[in-house]
Amino acid sequence: MAKAVFYHAGCPVCVDAERTILGYLDRSKLNVEIVHLGADRNRIREAEQLGVQSVPALVIDDKVYHINYGASLQDVKNG
Amino acid sequence: MAKAVFYHAGCPVCVDAERTILGYLDRSKLNVEIVHLGADRNRIREAEQLGVQSVPALVIDDKVYHINYGASLQDVKNG
Repeated sequence: MAKAVFYHAGCPVCVDAERTILGYLDRSKLNVEIVHLGADRNRIREAEQLGVQSVPALVIDDKVYHINYGASLQDVKNG
Repeated sequence: MAKAVFYHAGCPVCVDAERTILGYLDRSKLNVEIVHLGADRNRIREAEQLGVQSVPALVIDDKVYHINYGASLQDVKNG
């Protein structure tokens, strides 16, 4: 099964994208992990290395899809 | 069933998002229409009114999710 990681930081744009987009993903095809970078700060480097520039971002098979714009990764790092 | 419209313009970023994101949407929950604004130019106004600013964009229940950045709607209008 393909793997996706949804990186977010609890921002309103993130919460909305999580509810809507993630709610419509086919979980029989895709294993989705949700990572709150504000809480799981040790995952920030991993997100950065994958190419995540802002949150919310959905990474599927190492390809990054930025969905709208909640906050920059730099803001999350500084926060 | 909820309704989604994926607006694109045939750009590489659009094609990639279509293949990946749309391929993982649960079609048993979501009816997805794909609109190529370069070909279906009479849908540009509708996209604009929904708040689409760039393509690719996925609109679910009138909420716009811009996915990465392929081209601005203005570019599509001018094209």
